[in-house]
Amino acid sequence: MHFDHAGLATDDADSLSFLFEDLLGVEVVHEELFDGMRVVFLDLGNGYLELLEPTDGGTIATYLENNGPGIHHLAFATDDIEAALETAREREIALIDAEPRQGAWGHDVAFLHPKDTGGILVEFVQH
Amino acid sequence: MHFDHAGLATDDADSLSFLFEDLLGVEVVHEELFDGMRVVFLDLGNGYLELLEPTDGGTIATYLENNGPGIHHLAFATDDIEAALETAREREIALIDAEPRQGAWGHDVAFLHPKDTGGILVEFVQH
Repeated sequence: MHFDHAGLATDDADSLSFLFEDLLGVEVVHEELFDGMRVVFLDLGNGYLELLEPTDGGTIATYLENNGPGIHHLAFATDDIEAALETAREREIALIDAEPRQGAWGHDVAFLHPKDTGGILVEFVQH
Repeated sequence: MHFDHAGLATDDADSLSFLFEDLLGVEVVHEELFDGMRVVFLDLGNGYLELLEPTDGGTIATYLENNGPGIHHLAFATDDIEAALETAREREIALIDAEPRQGAWGHDVAFLHPKDTGGILVEFVQH
């Protein structure tokens, strides 16, 4: 697998995307409303930053209340998300998503529980 | 700039590197003792995971005490770290490192203060 994106929790996706565009010389390549969030992707050339701004409560709003803004998760790209989940099951890693579901940008995604992955919220993504 | 690595704070780099090797099919490509830490790099093909395990107090030990293990920072690769810092200065972003310093793996690095970058600890790195 390789790096796909870092998911960033923010209460102001506009300011943060403008900052990264300027600071890193990157561009917004996709934006959508998804699952109670505004989701903005910035293209790093070899992966993406995914800005997550809650619009209607939900897990990111709760995350921001508890932790403030910051790095929310890391996503790794796979060509076979079912096999990746099977490997996680064999390692007895708790799964947030037992089966792939449709994530932002129409990709198949599945999250693992951070309690079994060193406190890191890991996402598998298949484009 | 593009993605260089995600820095992960851990109290057990061996277990975490073994987990990621198995889960993501990646390999350890570099390991060193640096600045009171054991630092382990895993190769994602398009960037790295950098595991940071404190061996002698320091900022990662403090981070683990305050936050527990998890994603510590995001590093972006640049060909001109001085110019990158100048852009950050122009944006009035507080700098942890006003000048580049030698980081792990012999690279030039500089960190920006997360209070001005959406709660995200951003590192510039020049190989």
